Formats: sequence, C-alpha cells, structure tokens
Amino acid sequence: MAVKKVLIIGGGFAGINAAKKLGNAPDCSVTIIDRRNHHLFQPLLYQVAMAGLDPSDIASPIRSMLNRYDNISTLLGTVDRVDVDRRVLITEVGELAYDYLVVACGATHDYFGRDEWEDYAPGLKTIPQATEIRRRVLMAFESAERTDDLEEQTKCMTFVLVGGGPTGVELAGAIAEMARNTLKRDFKTIDATHAKVILVQSGDRILKQFPDALSQYSKAALEDLGVEVRLGDRVTDINAEGVQVGDDFIHARTVIWAAGVKANPIGKTLGVETDRAGRVQVGEDLSIAGHPEVFVIGDLAAAKDKEGNPLPGLAPVAIQQGHYVGKLIRSEVAGKTSMKTRRPFHYLDKGQVATIGRRRAVMQSGRLRLKGTLAWLGWLLIHILYLNGFRNRFFVFLSWAWSYVTFGRGARLIVAKQWKNNATE
Amino acid sequence: MAVKKVLIIGGGFAGINAAKKLGNAPDCSVTIIDRRNHHLFQPLLYQVAMAGLDPSDIASPIRSMLNRYDNISTLLGTVDRVDVDRRVLITEVGELAYDYLVVACGATHDYFGRDEWEDYAPGLKTIPQATEIRRRVLMAFESAERTDDLEEQTKCMTFVLVGGGPTGVELAGAIAEMARNTLKRDFKTIDATHAKVILVQSGDRILKQFPDALSQYSKAALEDLGVEVRLGDRVTDINAEGVQVGDDFIHARTVIWAAGVKANPIGKTLGVETDRAGRVQVGEDLSIAGHPEVFVIGDLAAAKDKEGNPLPGLAPVAIQQGHYVGKLIRSEVAGKTSMKTRRPFHYLDKGQVATIGRRRAVMQSGRLRLKGTLAWLGWLLIHILYLNGFRNRFFVFLSWAWSYVTFGRGARLIVAKQWKNNATE
Repeated sequence: MAVKKVLIIGGGFAGINAAKKLGNAPDCSVTIIDRRNHHLFQPLLYQVAMAGLDPSDIASPIRSMLNRYDNISTLLGTVDRVDVDRRVLITEVGELAYDYLVVACGATHDYFGRDEWEDYAPGLKTIPQATEIRRRVLMAFESAERTDDLEEQTKCMTFVLVGGGPTGVELAGAIAEMARNTLKRDFKTIDATHAKVILVQSGDRILKQFPDALSQYSKAALEDLGVEVRLGDRVTDINAEGVQVGDDFIHARTVIWAAGVKANPIGKTLGVETDRAGRVQVGEDLSIAGHPEVFVIGDLAAAKDKEGNPLPGLAPVAIQQGHYVGKLIRSEVAGKTSMKTRRPFHYLDKGQVATIGRRRAVMQSGRLRLKGTLAWLGWLLIHILYLNGFRNRFFVFLSWAWSYVTFGRGARLIVAKQWKNNATE
Repeated sequence: MAVKKVLIIGGGFAGINAAKKLGNAPDCSVTIIDRRNHHLFQPLLYQVAMAGLDPSDIASPIRSMLNRYDNISTLLGTVDRVDVDRRVLITEVGELAYDYLVVACGATHDYFGRDEWEDYAPGLKTIPQATEIRRRVLMAFESAERTDDLEEQTKCMTFVLVGGGPTGVELAGAIAEMARNTLKRDFKTIDATHAKVILVQSGDRILKQFPDALSQYSKAALEDLGVEVRLGDRVTDINAEGVQVGDDFIHARTVIWAAGVKANPIGKTLGVETDRAGRVQVGEDLSIAGHPEVFVIGDLAAAKDKEGNPLPGLAPVAIQQGHYVGKLIRSEVAGKTSMKTRRPFHYLDKGQVATIGRRRAVMQSGRLRLKGTLAWLGWLLIHILYLNGFRNRFFVFLSWAWSYVTFGRGARLIVAKQWKNNATE
C-alpha cells in the first residue's frame, strides 16, 4: 500500500491537533507548514500584551511539539495558494503534492475596509502585535510622566479598546488593574490610577455570546475597576489624535483594535464559496464541495452545528475539528473507513469562560452560570490545563501565583524595535 | 540647607548602584535618566540570544527597582550632551540642571571603522540585539532544512563568532550545545549536530584575562563540544556570504560580533581627554579634571587601579564604582565629608568566571583557579546571587534547572520584526 501524503497548513489549535492525531499513523507521511515556527496559545496572548507573561510562556516551537512523531515533518514557510485540481500546494519553497490537505491557517483582525486604522490601533493576534501593544501602553505612561502639558497628559493616559468581545474585555480590565495596582508606585509626577480606560462596543451589551446576566455582571465588574463601557456606539474614525465614537471625539494616544475578524486569503484560492468574512463553506465532514480530500478547519472554516447555526471562532471548536479530521484521515488511509461513508463532525459545546480581572470572571457551561471568584478559578484552571507542555504550564502557574501575591507584572519591558547600534527607537 | 540635585545618566550596573546608595539620602533629589526603561543583567544576555532565557528574566524596569525611594525620579529619554560649565544636561525633553552629575552610559560594540559589517554580524549589548541573534541562529537551521543545495546547507549551518572574550566563548559553546542536544531531534532532513561553529580570535589565546592554564582548558572544552577555535587570525571582511579570516574565506550565513567596544559618545561632550575607545579619563575619585562634581563610572570610564593599570569593563567594576560615587555624594551633601579631601576609589578584585557549557567553566579568584563542574557551579551561584530581584532569581533558577534536566531551551521562538497584519517578516 502506497504512503499517503498529508499536508497541513497552519500550526494553530486546529492544525496542531490534526497533526497529533496523525502522529505515527501507518502509511501517512505528514508535513505541517506554517509561516511562524511556533504554536501560540492565543487565549493568553492578551497577558503578554499586558506584561504579565512572556512570549515563550504561551508559545512552543511546532517542531518540538511534534518531534516525537517520525512521520511528521515541519516546514517553516509561506503558502501562496492551493491548486485543488492538480492537488498541489504552491509555497515559497516550491510545490508540494498531497493526497489529503488540511487548511487551518486561521483568521486575522479586520478593519472593515479601513486598513489605515491599523497604524493607530493594532490588533492582537501575534506575538509581535502583543509586544507592540505592551510597548504602546507602557510608553503612554512614560510620555505622560515626561510632559507638563495637562491636555497631552490626559491624552497619554486615555486608552480606548474597540470591541466588547473577550479580548476587548480582558484588555480593558488588565489595563485598569495595571494602572491601579502595578504602576501607581512607579511614577512620581503622574497618578497612574487616573488612567482612563474606555471600552467601545457597537452592540447593546458586551460578551454577547454569554447569557445576558453574565454580560451585565461583566459590565458592572469593569465599571468597578474604573473602566467606562460605551454601548451602542460605533467607531467612525481613528487617527493619531484619538477615536471618533458616535458624536464624540475621544482624545487618546493608545487605541487597541479588538473588533472584526477576516479569514486568511488562502481560503479564496480553494475555488469554493466563502462568507462575508472570507470563511470557507464546508460540509458536515468539514471538507469542501467536490473535494473530499480537502478539509478546512478552525477559524478559516464556516462550519455549522446540528441546528445550522455557525460555529464560533473559538479554540475548542478548532481543537475538536483538528481531532476529527486527524482521526478521519488516519482511519481512511488505514482502510478502516471510506470517504463515501463519513460520520459528520459534531461540536461538543463544553461552555465558555472570560476573565475581567482579579477574581472577576464569567463562565457558562450548559445550564451552569458562574461569576466572580469561582468563575475566575475555573478560568485559571482551564487555561493552565489546556496550555501546551508541562514547562509552559508550570511557568505560567508560577507567574500567576507571583503576580497575584505581589500585584506585580514581571515583563514590564519596553523593548526597542530596532536592534542596530545607533537605533534610536 | 538647600536640596542638591543629582543627575545620573544610565541605568546599568554603575548608575543603578549609585542611585541605590543615594536612596532616601537627606537633601538629595536624584533623577536617573536612561533611553531604555529597564536595567539589564548583561552577563546573562547571551542566554537570551541562545533561547535559554526570556528577556524579562534578566531585565527589570528601572522605575520599579527604585520606586521605594521617594527622592529618586526616573526619566525615560535620550541625552544629547553635557554642558559642564553651565552645569546642565541637554536631553530630548529639555535641559536639566545639576549639582552633581554621574555619567554612566556605558559602551557599545565597535566595528573598528567598518560599521557596514553590523548588518552581517550583529553584536550583543541590548535585548533587541539578543532576539535578533536568536532569530538568525534559529532561522539558519530552518533554512538549512528547507534547501536541497548542499553548499547552501553547509553555509546555513556554519556559525562564526568574532572575538575570544567571555561573550564569544559563551556563544560558541551555547550554539554547539544547542545543535548537539536541543535541536538534533527537531529536524528530519538535516543533522543539526553537523553544525560548524568557528570562534575567531586575533590574539594567541581565548579568555586572555584569565591565567594561561584556564585559557587552554577553555579552548579544549570548546573543541570537545565541536567548536573550531582559530587563534592569531584577523577578520578582514564580513559580507552576506561569510567572513574573510586571514587567507581563508569562511562561507557562513550567521556571524556574530563579540570583538571591539567603544564608549558612548556622550563622554566626548565632557571636554576632557578620552582614550582610543572613547573612554573618559578620570581621577582617583572618578571625577573629571576641573569638575569634582562630575563623575564618570562604569564602561565609559578609563579608570586605573593602584598600580596604574586600566580597570576592565566588567560588571563588578561598575557596581563598585556606583557604590563608591553614591556613598561619596551622599556624604558630601550631608556635610560629613568635603570635596577637597576625597578618599580615592579602590577596586576590590574578587576574581572572574566564564562559562563554556554544561559543567564546563573557568573561575579565578586571587590565587584560586577552578575549572570544570566546580567552576560551573560557582558561575551559576554567582549569577543567581547577583541577579536583581527575587522574582528574576527564582525564575532563572527554575529555567536553568529545567534546561539542565531536559536539555531543552524554552524560548526557541522565531518572532517576526514587524507587527502589522500583512507583515511578511
């Protein structure tokens, strides 16, 4: 029996879990390609941006995560497009042929056609973005300390978060807590506790994927930390001076984008229908129409649950899809099942959790609803458990314990972007 | 009695220790200015470059290191020059007047007039430089894995270190160990253990500040790790293809500069004599000629010991000079001593230590000479003890223990330089 070539694009939650299920699978030769060398635990990326964790706490080299499987190769490189008819992937290092293809290259943030906003309002999807946000937030306090101009000082100490989903809520809570607890003793001229944090949400409540009561609790918890939550307001402009929100112009030096998402453009090269955000339509088995050998999973896929509702772009969905596709390919290559009689993918919704700050979080699982300390402990536990590798778990646990006791943030470094001798920034 | 203004330029070993000695000193208002927000534990920077430690393990915000002292302010900014006659410091945020000035802004690496070499051979003085070197070393293995061209593969897997001082030796040993132990299982196409590491030293032995027997041991220890040590060879050119060493051209993708040092140009604005490397001539009390209120300490100072020999650019020298100057100013402001009857600075040489790799190091203290495991344990102990802050010590200790047991390097991340959505690098 011939060895089947399986290509996986993307080493995120979906791709890495598909790969693991194919580890040491008989007659399978697997290559996973990613333009970064590391898998990233996205749910904790905001903590890197907020100087609570280091990049390496939440990232692991894809190579070392998979090095125990002899049949899996890792390739660092970018993918241009897929030629589904010729069954080849066109990459920067040449063409790669496949028998099975798993497309799991995710999504990035979207500025709704206003890409020029990115300069003033970075999003949070990658490590360089997290360190850029960290740099901006810390530099804002430094600049406030350096100036005598009160208007400039206020602008420096105003932080606007665009988007009321989990990322926006987590960042707003974290900036407010950092100003209140960690930074207040550091500055002599300014009072860091006077920092103004504004969360802008176009809808009528934050964390809208949670039950209404938990949204209300989250809003109250943020306000208790001093965050101003603006609901039903739309951002119409962002520039170097600040943000236009409805009829108000908010003068703010630091703006962070946590709103729209758009899928990786590779999805469009598959030749099948995509939705408004560029996500690829997939069947019940997560393959694309006419090509049972091509799967799309994770944030790039527009998959649906049993009731026909779209599945959210969350880590658990990506993980379960990765497991499903990995097992399916393994079984078909081994001749145990057939392409023609595939059992559909079912998402098991275990619930969701979001954190606002110290001992403030919300959690929903089935009919269970938790808020406050218990939900926060649940959040901690879940994130430690799902974090890859014992080393990461151990160090993140210790960092958290340390921060909890001392109110400190160990990674409060402003690191220059340029490395050369005479670099000024 | 009027409050005296003390300005300290630089938050390295010299400046931070001068500041600490002035903490809560009566009638002293101290400002420490640095263009970075963090103090860096330079002796472990090579471990950040070698993916063994995270930047925040060896760096602490200057603000938080000094926030317990009410009389000390921290300013983030660049200094243009000193006007010793008017007793003002000209900075990017305006002029600052002083009664006492402590200039401690260190040195950077020097390419002996060939600044164009920097692109091909970064030096190691700052965190961005450490992460750039990490990126280059890890990317070299990735590129080797991606190519079929054997010549190109060899070039990718050749690493040249220029300079046989502690930094060059530590980096050479660490790259060799990383290839041998950490990376060998990660790559399927290339054999990482075939990496060629070449240390080029123009003098006739490496670690020339150590006794000859320890230099010999270090050379043998490096060679045992597979490092080629080239003595008495001078680098005459560095370009994208490699390095010209004597009559040989070594094809190498990765070159690291660990050779020359030049002092910060601020020293030249003091109006006194500087040596060839731009270091400022200071008197026995570390002040400059004609200006007893201006001190130069650390790597920027050309200080001498009792015998008239120049003091080396080492952390212990900077620390002791910082303590000396801080105490001296404190005592003079308090009226306990006078500018006219200053006790000279004496450097207490406690010895030196350098590491080559796992259980391989050299140590010399007075007449004591150690090598191998015992010296290595000494090295570990000294570096843990001198590391600032309990958090840093604790996390570095754990990282080391982890790496020692697993042969792993936790921070093996290749992080892009650009943060934008569409950034390709």
